Amino acid sequence: MSLTKKDFIYEGKAKQVYATEEADKVIVYYKDDATAFNAQKRGTVEDKGEMNNKISTLIFNYLIEKGIPTHFIEQLNDREQLVKRVSIIPIEMVVRNYVAGSMAQRLGLEEGGKSPVTIFDICYKKDELGDPLINDHHAVLLGAATYDELKELYAITDKINEALKELFLKAGLILADFKIEFGKDLDGNIILADEISPDTCRLWDVETGEKLDKDRFRRDLGDVSEAYHEVYNRLSKVLK
Amino acid sequence: MSLTKKDFIYEGKAKQVYATEEADKVIVYYKDDATAFNAQKRGTVEDKGEMNNKISTLIFNYLIEKGIPTHFIEQLNDREQLVKRVSIIPIEMVVRNYVAGSMAQRLGLEEGGKSPVTIFDICYKKDELGDPLINDHHAVLLGAATYDELKELYAITDKINEALKELFLKAGLILADFKIEFGKDLDGNIILADEISPDTCRLWDVETGEKLDKDRFRRDLGDVSEAYHEVYNRLSKVLK
Repeated sequence: MSLTKKDFIYEGKAKQVYATEEADKVIVYYKDDATAFNAQKRGTVEDKGEMNNKISTLIFNYLIEKGIPTHFIEQLNDREQLVKRVSIIPIEMVVRNYVAGSMAQRLGLEEGGKSPVTIFDICYKKDELGDPLINDHHAVLLGAATYDELKELYAITDKINEALKELFLKAGLILADFKIEFGKDLDGNIILADEISPDTCRLWDVETGEKLDKDRFRRDLGDVSEAYHEVYNRLSKVLK
Repeated sequence: MSLTKKDFIYEGKAKQVYATEEADKVIVYYKDDATAFNAQKRGTVEDKGEMNNKISTLIFNYLIEKGIPTHFIEQLNDREQLVKRVSIIPIEMVVRNYVAGSMAQRLGLEEGGKSPVTIFDICYKKDELGDPLINDHHAVLLGAATYDELKELYAITDKINEALKELFLKAGLILADFKIEFGKDLDGNIILADEISPDTCRLWDVETGEKLDKDRFRRDLGDVSEAYHEVYNRLSKVLK
């Protein structure tokens, strides 16, 4: 028997979450809504929900094959995924292979340079505070994670970065940086949650440097929907 | 032969630095100038320079006895110290035993609580950027320090914190948090530099919780000069 959407649980900026007949499984619905700069900028991007659902599905399946534990179970339709129910760890894990975005601003650096080291930033997921950059000690003080859990989070995140860099490069894309979130399943295991898509990754065309991600929306560069379609098309070719 | 002030080298917010006849030694002059909030607030505090010079002298001598490598050589007079010339590592090492100040704001926490873990923050010393909080990866990206140097900085800072907590407690003061800076001497050794004073420490009376530090200036609490005198008087009793 296939599961169906029951009670509405939660609405995020780009997704909705619904209960199912089974307590440990939820359905995620991908919206076309787009926000940026801590939701100060709002809009919609045609087909974004469908593209991000499909892109995330491709990427979760790829990562599962690489041995990464994730919440993903299956894609249900154009807009929906069935995933394991988790309690989200309130930390955004950000990985930066290139200098861009908020880090470039914070450190007074020009965008676009390759970092000589892989940079891991962690941010406290708290809209009212603007998701501030924190460090491991803050995370422990806040009760967001223990030092041991942080070690595990960094290790999985590093593995994910290596796998994703390789994947995107095959699709002619540089993975400049990305954000992921983890949750704990009902048994307390830490697993990758949320989504991986052009909403959460900075993707630059290897040849032209063209941005194929949410920066097109953030910075009003035009052809936003086209960029999401392009990423999906490239990934689906590589992964077939 | 005693050394004398030669060429002016540098003016900071609370100190001036002068060359001497010897290339590896400089004279630090402690001013009464006070600044806060990245120098948006400015003023002077009577006797602050003299008190901070004397307090720093007491503390540097105490830390040297505890085996901490520092730039301190000797106090010359009420306002001046002779110290080793260093190139400053552009990282502020902040230690927090209690929740206060910028961390309380950033994380949305109330001031005054004891932290269950010792918190080490590092900030990039860059006035134009407002000395932003960074992490180890940023420090390496910026060329401010290597991962190995950071490990050394954290280890010395931890040792300093333990020594200072003990010292201040004997003086009836809680060391809520403090900021220190390190430099490299001409042989490349990492040594404690700058100052340790009520300008750089949050000190709370053990009994009353009264603030005896620069927060009196920052927050217009009055009796600023008196607080600096009080800290000096208490420390000089303990250390005699």
